Amino acid sequence: MRTTAEKTNSLPVHGGLNYAELQSIGLCPEDVLDFSASINPLGTAPGVSEAVQRVPADIYPDPSCLQLRQALGRHLGIEPGSILVGNGSTELIHLIARAFLSYGDTVVIFAPTFAEYEAACRLQSVTPVFISSKKDEGFRWDMPKALNIIADQKAAAVFVCNPNNPTGIHLKEQEVRQIAETMDKCGLLVLDEAYRSFVDECWPSHPLLCMENVLLLRSMTKDYALAGLRLGYMLASDAIVRQVGQYQYSWSVNAPAQAAGIAALSQQEHVELGRQMVVASKKFLRSALSVIGLECIPSTANFLMIRVGEAARIRLELLKKYKICVRDCGSFGLPDYIRVGVRNKQDSRQLVQALKEVVSDKDG
Amino acid sequence: MRTTAEKTNSLPVHGGLNYAELQSIGLCPEDVLDFSASINPLGTAPGVSEAVQRVPADIYPDPSCLQLRQALGRHLGIEPGSILVGNGSTELIHLIARAFLSYGDTVVIFAPTFAEYEAACRLQSVTPVFISSKKDEGFRWDMPKALNIIADQKAAAVFVCNPNNPTGIHLKEQEVRQIAETMDKCGLLVLDEAYRSFVDECWPSHPLLCMENVLLLRSMTKDYALAGLRLGYMLASDAIVRQVGQYQYSWSVNAPAQAAGIAALSQQEHVELGRQMVVASKKFLRSALSVIGLECIPSTANFLMIRVGEAARIRLELLKKYKICVRDCGSFGLPDYIRVGVRNKQDSRQLVQALKEVVSDKDG
Repeated sequence: MRTTAEKTNSLPVHGGLNYAELQSIGLCPEDVLDFSASINPLGTAPGVSEAVQRVPADIYPDPSCLQLRQALGRHLGIEPGSILVGNGSTELIHLIARAFLSYGDTVVIFAPTFAEYEAACRLQSVTPVFISSKKDEGFRWDMPKALNIIADQKAAAVFVCNPNNPTGIHLKEQEVRQIAETMDKCGLLVLDEAYRSFVDECWPSHPLLCMENVLLLRSMTKDYALAGLRLGYMLASDAIVRQVGQYQYSWSVNAPAQAAGIAALSQQEHVELGRQMVVASKKFLRSALSVIGLECIPSTANFLMIRVGEAARIRLELLKKYKICVRDCGSFGLPDYIRVGVRNKQDSRQLVQALKEVVSDKDG
Repeated sequence: MRTTAEKTNSLPVHGGLNYAELQSIGLCPEDVLDFSASINPLGTAPGVSEAVQRVPADIYPDPSCLQLRQALGRHLGIEPGSILVGNGSTELIHLIARAFLSYGDTVVIFAPTFAEYEAACRLQSVTPVFISSKKDEGFRWDMPKALNIIADQKAAAVFVCNPNNPTGIHLKEQEVRQIAETMDKCGLLVLDEAYRSFVDECWPSHPLLCMENVLLLRSMTKDYALAGLRLGYMLASDAIVRQVGQYQYSWSVNAPAQAAGIAALSQQEHVELGRQMVVASKKFLRSALSVIGLECIPSTANFLMIRVGEAARIRLELLKKYKICVRDCGSFGLPDYIRVGVRNKQDSRQLVQALKEVVSDKDG
């Protein structure tokens, strides 16, 4: 039995509401205009609530998510045996780390990015190597340098979020293929495509699965706005799926989440309309923010990084004064930026107005 | 990156419906009278469905389950910091193994029992030592021998299911205290009380928490029949709760499960009425089974082991011919027994009638 002193992993920081903070301020989650989450701005796909309501609460869920994998298989043209469903893609990230990583392995993470890759590595006693992009290079990574590092380090795994959270950078197919080829089948490329449905001109990534060392992560939480239910899946070779699946505890994806996923898959128009709204709202936001003197990082995804100065203060004031929640990028190592998930134009107007007040407070 | 050949953990076998099997037979889960799950026979607690329906699908759940821990804290008279909520107690079993066990540790499991303790140990590269009870001793463990083994092995952890699944044996307070004392604070006693709410004369176990090496597991899935939603919690010292919580991935307990838990806690009468039904139905079942010549193992819990001979065949015939699902105890090392979760008398009558036919088929 280990003592608590032996492990000092800190929990990863995320967007989404901080319920303890809201309780201390006296706010209910429903009162808050939440720009900290980056999901389909149209809200939950039609038919999902009805499907969830029809689920009997007292029948065990299918631990193998068979029906949902069959529905995903039909939708994607992929065999159900090449699909593993998770309680959000976050569960899958941790399962991947458990199945493939152990002390002594080298893992490369393209950064700044989603905190859960590092957290999952550290829980396996692996300290990752970061390939960090720079602001003055538009947050694009230096790919030749990155490929050299991956080859030199003989990385057991590489994590790339594509498009990347929080920068919105989207690697091209050729760049991703180069990473996988550089790893030379000895290491696993985990390509997290949580936000790919909101990219305007997206290249098809499933042909990458012919390379045996590629694993794709997808988020139904984001596509169909199922944040409360949590649902993600991974696509990989049957051997990788079996290997990762061994670490999944029984019934981790509950019955409402499975039912929601099956219902949501028939709502592809909802995803397309969400993507169109993202494009229009991003254009509006960038222009309106520029008018009040705030710089946005160009983003291919359904979120934007905005340079505001003291992000932690701005976030807290937006929450307390305007009941607007944004993501402070301090935990990404970017304390000058906030990240906002793209919402509709009306909400965006409210955000811009509040930002104008709060940012000018600093000067006043 | 490991190859699949390096790990050969097989997935644990459980009760609950096998959805792939049902699909192959042409049955829907709703068509089946499920005696394989052992939950409150009254079904889901009142008010739970309504609470679940009010949950917005598109708002992230509270990763810290604050409101639910506060409600549990009030209900149990325990500080929220001493409570960790899990996606079923199964998630917690795996988190405990990750937080406290590693290769080289000795773990003792009181057997036959729930398969997930062994599965969680093996995923940590720990091969457990089993203290097995014998049929001709009424499935009671030889406690002096068990205590010697625990002391000799310097066990890092001991798993005891109390009352035990599938035998229904319930250890007394003194016996449990002896186990914890024998471990002498060097090891962790995990007392899984998933079925304690259905025990007729139950001793209060939370005073055990004064011993620093005791962890209690509880199942709201069982108490309030939330099998589709999945909800469990653990009680332990704040230090143990923090240590285990570090391994929990973000948002593992989704929003419907948290809302269901909060609503269910106000329905204590439902649990008490469920317990009373269990007592009455068990009495009826034992007597009716004895009339048709089938022996039951006395059980303090809400399930019964029945000696039927070839349990695998009996289970399959009950499912195919009568749409009744029971648990074949082969995976517990007891291929002569089935386990049935206690349901109401009407369902019990159906079971007895079907068993009578299926068991006599063997002879005819």
